[in-house]
Amino acid sequence: MAIREKVFGTIVNCFKRHGAQTIDTPVFELKETLTEKYGEEYKLIYNLEDQGGELLSLRYDLTVPFARYLVMNKITNFKCYHIGKVYRRDHPSIRRGRYREFYQCDFDIAGKYDPMIPDAECMKIVHEILTELQLGDFLIKVNDRRILEGIFEVCGVPGNKFQKVCSCVDKLDKISWEDVKNEMVGENGLAPEAADQIGAYVRLNGGISLIEQLLQDPRLSQNKLALEGLEDIKMLFRYLRLFGVTDNVFIDLSLARGLDYYTGVIYEAVLLPNQGEMQFQQQNDHAEELLNVGSVAGGGRYDELVGMFDAKDRKVPCVGLSIGIERIFAVMEQKAEISEEKIRTTDTQILVAAAQKNFLEERMKLISDLWSAGIKAEMLYKKDPKLLSQLHYCEETGIPLVAIVGEQELNDGVVKLRIVSTREEINVPRGNLIEEIKKRSS
Amino acid sequence: MAIREKVFGTIVNCFKRHGAQTIDTPVFELKETLTEKYGEEYKLIYNLEDQGGELLSLRYDLTVPFARYLVMNKITNFKCYHIGKVYRRDHPSIRRGRYREFYQCDFDIAGKYDPMIPDAECMKIVHEILTELQLGDFLIKVNDRRILEGIFEVCGVPGNKFQKVCSCVDKLDKISWEDVKNEMVGENGLAPEAADQIGAYVRLNGGISLIEQLLQDPRLSQNKLALEGLEDIKMLFRYLRLFGVTDNVFIDLSLARGLDYYTGVIYEAVLLPNQGEMQFQQQNDHAEELLNVGSVAGGGRYDELVGMFDAKDRKVPCVGLSIGIERIFAVMEQKAEISEEKIRTTDTQILVAAAQKNFLEERMKLISDLWSAGIKAEMLYKKDPKLLSQLHYCEETGIPLVAIVGEQELNDGVVKLRIVSTREEINVPRGNLIEEIKKRSS
Repeated sequence: MAIREKVFGTIVNCFKRHGAQTIDTPVFELKETLTEKYGEEYKLIYNLEDQGGELLSLRYDLTVPFARYLVMNKITNFKCYHIGKVYRRDHPSIRRGRYREFYQCDFDIAGKYDPMIPDAECMKIVHEILTELQLGDFLIKVNDRRILEGIFEVCGVPGNKFQKVCSCVDKLDKISWEDVKNEMVGENGLAPEAADQIGAYVRLNGGISLIEQLLQDPRLSQNKLALEGLEDIKMLFRYLRLFGVTDNVFIDLSLARGLDYYTGVIYEAVLLPNQGEMQFQQQNDHAEELLNVGSVAGGGRYDELVGMFDAKDRKVPCVGLSIGIERIFAVMEQKAEISEEKIRTTDTQILVAAAQKNFLEERMKLISDLWSAGIKAEMLYKKDPKLLSQLHYCEETGIPLVAIVGEQELNDGVVKLRIVSTREEINVPRGNLIEEIKKRSS
Repeated sequence: MAIREKVFGTIVNCFKRHGAQTIDTPVFELKETLTEKYGEEYKLIYNLEDQGGELLSLRYDLTVPFARYLVMNKITNFKCYHIGKVYRRDHPSIRRGRYREFYQCDFDIAGKYDPMIPDAECMKIVHEILTELQLGDFLIKVNDRRILEGIFEVCGVPGNKFQKVCSCVDKLDKISWEDVKNEMVGENGLAPEAADQIGAYVRLNGGISLIEQLLQDPRLSQNKLALEGLEDIKMLFRYLRLFGVTDNVFIDLSLARGLDYYTGVIYEAVLLPNQGEMQFQQQNDHAEELLNVGSVAGGGRYDELVGMFDAKDRKVPCVGLSIGIERIFAVMEQKAEISEEKIRTTDTQILVAAAQKNFLEERMKLISDLWSAGIKAEMLYKKDPKLLSQLHYCEETGIPLVAIVGEQELNDGVVKLRIVSTREEINVPRGNLIEEIKKRSS
C-alpha cells in the first residue's frame, strides 16, 4: 500500500495538473448496461445473485461506466479521471499481474474539439507519468484505426472481416508473422495474397518519415480513410514536438489494440528492458522482442461509444488513456525488492519516549502538543516501556527522531531529542521543540 | 467529489499523524466469512451469482474483513486505517444518507497494551477529525459494555438476555423510556421491577463525577464487571484530560451501540444543532432530543472478534473507530449549498490563451513549459478560440489567472498576465512568468 499510494499520488497529481476533475461510479452496473460491450469476454463478467430487484453485474472496466455516466448526466464536454476497481472472472496470475479484482486508472477528454489537440495532450500525459515514475526507458507506439482500415480496404479485405483481421494483426507483438498469416488465411478465410499485402504494410514502423512515405504510396494515398488517418498522425506529431515528447514516440502499423470501440488514433506505451536484460536478450533472441516487455499504458479515440448509450444516438467524441496501474505496481515492487531499500509504511516523524518509569502522563501531554502542531507522532501504548524497546521500535519502523522526557529534562524545561541514525542526542528547550522537529523533518 | 476529496484528505491526514498504515481488502469475501457475523442483518448481504468456483458475497462492513486480514497474516500488533466501500441490500434513502453502496472509514489499533491508552487515542482522533472538519459543535458520548452488563446483572437479568436488553437500551435515544420498558417486559419477558431498576441506571448521564457516584453505589460497586468498567472509564478520563479533549466528552449510560462484538469502552459522536435549530427545538420539544441530531462517528473495544476467525482462538484485543463519512458528506454538501459558495472542481491555476488567430502552436509551447514547472494549466482545445470564450471558461470554472500570448507580446518577449477577478493585466517577461504564477497562487 505504501508503494501504491506513492504511485497514485504521482498519477493523480499529473491528471490535476492538466485540469481534470474526478468522478466515482458504483462498483455494480445494471447487467444490461454491460451486455454486448465486450464481445467474447462477456463470460468473464461477475453477476450478482438474483435476490429480487434489478439484475446487477460488477463493472468490467471504467470506460463503459464513464460513457453511461456522460449520457445519464447529459454531459457533452468533460475532462476527468476515474480510478476504481474492476472485476473479471479470469484465471488469476500474480506473476503476470492478472487479478480478478484490480485497479483501473483512466483519464478521458469528451467533447467536440479541433482535431488532435486533446489527443496530443493524452499522449503528453502518458509521457509525463512514465517519466515521473522513473520506470526506466519506454516507447510510445502510435497508430490510427483508419490507417488500418484503409490498409485492409486496399488489400481487398471485405468490411465485415475488419474486426477479426484487426485482432490478428494485434497479435504481431506476441507471435510471428507466419502464425498471424496462417490465422488470417486459415481461420478467417483471407486470400493468401491479401494477407501478404497486409503483412507488407503492418510490419512497417518508424518515425514521422514513415507517414511521408505512406502519403506517397500509390494505393494508400487514394484511400479516404487511410488518408485521414495519415494526415491526422502528421498533425499529432507536430503537436507532440511542441509538447517536447517526440523522442519516445514511434509509429507502429501493427498496433491495433483489442477493443472494438476505437475509431481513430490509438497508442500504447511499453517499458524497455534495462541494459543488462537487453544484452542478455540480444544474445539470445530477436531484437524486435525487446519492445515487448509489457504495455504499461494505452488508449485512443472512441467517438462512437457514448452514442451507443444514448436513446437518440447523440455522439460525444472522446479520447482517453488508461494507465496499467497493476503492472506499474509490480514493477515498482520488484525495484524495491532488488534495491533492498526498506520501504516505510508510515510517515511518523517522531516517537515520544521516556527513559524512566511513571512518565506516561508527561508523554501524553507532550504528544498531544505535537499532534496539535501537525507533527506526526507516536508513543508506545505501555505505561512504562523500556527505553530500549522504544528505540528498537523506531529502528524497526523507520521513525527518524525520538523525544525523550525524564526527571532531569522536566526540571530543566527541555526535551532530549535523539537522532536515530546518528544516535546523537541534544537538549532542546520545550518551547523550541516543534520548530526543531519541523526543521529536521524538511 | 470535490467535497469528498477534501473530507478524505483531512481524515487521512489525521490518521497518518497518529502513525497509522493503511490496508486494502477485496470488495468480496468468501460467503462463509460473513455468515453469522451480523445477526438478523444477514438478509441485507449481497451475494454473487454461483458461476462456478467459490461462493462470494460483497463485504457488509470493514471490521470483519479487517479481523480476517489480521488472522490470515498472523498479525498481532497493528495500527491502521481502512477506507472502502461496503454494500447493503437496504431500502436506500438519500435524505437520511442511507445507500446500498457507501464508504466506511475505519481506524483500528490491534494488540495487547496497557489499559485505556489506545482507547484514549481513538477518542482523541474522533475529536481531532470533527474539530478540523468544522462541522459545528459536537458531543462524544461514552459508556462501557461491562458497566451495562453489571447493571443488568445487579438488576437480575439472566445472562442469555443481555444482548436483547442491550438492544432495547440502545433505542433510548430514539424512543421514550416507556416504550423501551414495554419492549423489555413485553417482548423480552423481563420483570417490570427489573426493567424499572435498569431504567433508573441507564437514564443517568454526566461528567466524571457520575463515575465517582456509581463507584459509591452499594450494588454496582459490588459487581466485578461494573467495577472494572467504572475504573477504566475513570482512567480514560484522566488520559483524555491530558489529551485536552474532556470538554466535549460525557458519560451516557444508555449508550449501548448495536453491534454484538463490543467488549469494553464504547463511544459515539453526535453533532449538536446550531443555535437557530436549537432555539426552535427548545420551544417545541424535549431538551434531551437535542443530542440526537445524528451520530457521525463511533467505535469501541472488541477483544474477541479476531479470535473468532482463528482456528486456535488466539485473541488479538482491538479498539477502533468508524467515521460516519456519508453523513459528514451530506452535512458538508448542505453547508456548501446554504453558503452558495461555488465549489471549484479543479485546481487549475492558469489558462493559456491567445487573443489572435494562428497562435495554437505558441499556446502549446507555453503550456508545455508550465506543466514542466509543475503549474496546473489548461488551454481550450480549439485552434483559434475567441478571447471572450477563453475568459468565459475561466469565470465558469474558477481559474484565477490567464496567460495571453499574441504578436506584440511575442515580439516584446513577454506574456500578458490577466487576473480574472480584477481584470487587471500586466506584462510579465517570459523568463519570470513561472515565478509570477507561483507567487500569485500561494
